[in-house]
Amino acid sequence: MKISSILERCCHICKLPGRVMGIRVLRFSLVVILVLLLVAGALTALLPSVKEDKMLMLRREIKSQGKSTMDSFTLIMQTYNRTDLLLKLLNHYQAVPNLHKVIVVWNNIGEKAPDELWNSLGPHPIPVIFKQQTANRMRNRLQVFPELETSAVLMVDDDTLISTPDLVFAFSVWQQFPDQIVGFVPRKHVSTSSGIYSYGGFEMQAPGSGNGDQYSMVLIGASFFNSKYLEFFQRQPAAVHALIDDTQNCDDIAMNFIIAKHIGKTSGIFVKPVNMDNLEKETNSGYSGMWHRAEHALQRSYCINKLVNIYGSMPLKYSNIMISQFGFPYANYKRKI
Amino acid sequence: MKISSILERCCHICKLPGRVMGIRVLRFSLVVILVLLLVAGALTALLPSVKEDKMLMLRREIKSQGKSTMDSFTLIMQTYNRTDLLLKLLNHYQAVPNLHKVIVVWNNIGEKAPDELWNSLGPHPIPVIFKQQTANRMRNRLQVFPELETSAVLMVDDDTLISTPDLVFAFSVWQQFPDQIVGFVPRKHVSTSSGIYSYGGFEMQAPGSGNGDQYSMVLIGASFFNSKYLEFFQRQPAAVHALIDDTQNCDDIAMNFIIAKHIGKTSGIFVKPVNMDNLEKETNSGYSGMWHRAEHALQRSYCINKLVNIYGSMPLKYSNIMISQFGFPYANYKRKI
Repeated sequence: MKISSILERCCHICKLPGRVMGIRVLRFSLVVILVLLLVAGALTALLPSVKEDKMLMLRREIKSQGKSTMDSFTLIMQTYNRTDLLLKLLNHYQAVPNLHKVIVVWNNIGEKAPDELWNSLGPHPIPVIFKQQTANRMRNRLQVFPELETSAVLMVDDDTLISTPDLVFAFSVWQQFPDQIVGFVPRKHVSTSSGIYSYGGFEMQAPGSGNGDQYSMVLIGASFFNSKYLEFFQRQPAAVHALIDDTQNCDDIAMNFIIAKHIGKTSGIFVKPVNMDNLEKETNSGYSGMWHRAEHALQRSYCINKLVNIYGSMPLKYSNIMISQFGFPYANYKRKI
Repeated sequence: MKISSILERCCHICKLPGRVMGIRVLRFSLVVILVLLLVAGALTALLPSVKEDKMLMLRREIKSQGKSTMDSFTLIMQTYNRTDLLLKLLNHYQAVPNLHKVIVVWNNIGEKAPDELWNSLGPHPIPVIFKQQTANRMRNRLQVFPELETSAVLMVDDDTLISTPDLVFAFSVWQQFPDQIVGFVPRKHVSTSSGIYSYGGFEMQAPGSGNGDQYSMVLIGASFFNSKYLEFFQRQPAAVHALIDDTQNCDDIAMNFIIAKHIGKTSGIFVKPVNMDNLEKETNSGYSGMWHRAEHALQRSYCINKLVNIYGSMPLKYSNIMISQFGFPYANYKRKI
């Protein structure tokens, strides 16, 4: 039906004087609107298929990039003065399944990162980005790196070798508990009658309790955690950052505080490693890692009390859940007689 | 200020003729309302303390009954022809922390339950109810017992001795995962190229996979699960109940199907027992349990396929998470060299 004939018919009907002129204009407008709606409807019916094609193309693009945001992880490894260990470890980690990318936080200020060496020994399974830092800070590894695209971070110290089965299993556990630190090194805090806290490991099991031990932290230097916690860390009070800068320590304790506070339950889940080694003795650099400093352990206790002060409470919660992989090593669920 | 004097003053002010009479009545009403509100306000200020007292009394009552609904569990133990084992086990289980009550499902038809013997050897830490059954059915233990008051059920076979530390730990795990079966006996189903399923245990690990094993069921005969699942079981199609009655088997497989279907994830979590024993060899009854029947294992596979048929799909999901108690036995998180 032509628009003009519609209009003609309306005009014919509408040939009335005075106020009726307004009605005629109204009817004309209604007809125009009706026609426009019909046209729009027709267009809309056509559009979805165009949109669907675009969505399909987008999905294909994401898939060809390899991973979706929860299905892979980014390794963040901070390094100082142990480039021989770093390169050895990178050769191991670069081949771990579900690894999306490696970000090396290069704390060797003034020394060029080994990009050229790395590239000359390519091709590599995944991209490795060397991030030159401006100051040698422990908390450099907790920046919000723009190169990070995955929901999960795997954070590993530059002297720690974790086996591939351990990593694959722990990542699958993290996918089931994405708001917690899923890692291989449990630690605890203890409170004392004076109200002062102290930091420790398994040697600190309350004697005579006979009912096992508890942990309240999982150290981030061998763990998976949600990458959003890097943003959380950046938003913490300046006093927290200052504490970490002063001690060059305790960034991991702070992360456990932040996460426990945020989720209201224990910050981490301990996965018992089957095959995890510390390679620090193998370095030629002569440098043996921060935890060998005389004051290291005392600093950790100091940090706990300072953080309780800053946050106004002790948010860490205890857990005694230890996760292992069923059937790995073979028949590990059978009782030993 | 007396109400009468207020009224007098208002009346004095209000001595006006005609329409003003209405205003006077209005003012009088307003004053009355105001006074009532003041009285009500005074009462309200008093009430909370009365309410609080009542709440406190109610809480004290609940506490004196011992437990709140998530903090304790009910042991359901079905028994047939092994009363010597039953009584030995009851002596052990009656003292487990957080146990609210024991329900013994007495499948010895025609034989009186040992209420008198039990009572003569009192007092006992918790109530034990012997439920005489009318027919010797495997699924008798999955009834909705009116005596059951807790959210958690501990279901144990009448030949299974589980240590108290194992029970206390597994219960704490159940409290963290209350929608799943938390138990000590994992089993799996496997699918074959023909599409027919088969039932098995750890000997069925896929050879050469090198990546550990998986389980898809946790047997209910040594487990904690949510008591609401007893109601779920009762609501299942008659074909499911008939299958269990025909085989006198598979009630636990059915429960895993039901729960997996309901929660859309793996039905159970396996907790590795430290000290769990089967006492069947110690009975004087000469009766050695259903699983010794020649057809028992084949029946289990048969049941899986029948249930898939009845439900129209395979709802069981695999898991490889094995939970142990951190630090129990002592230092169990250290690596063995």
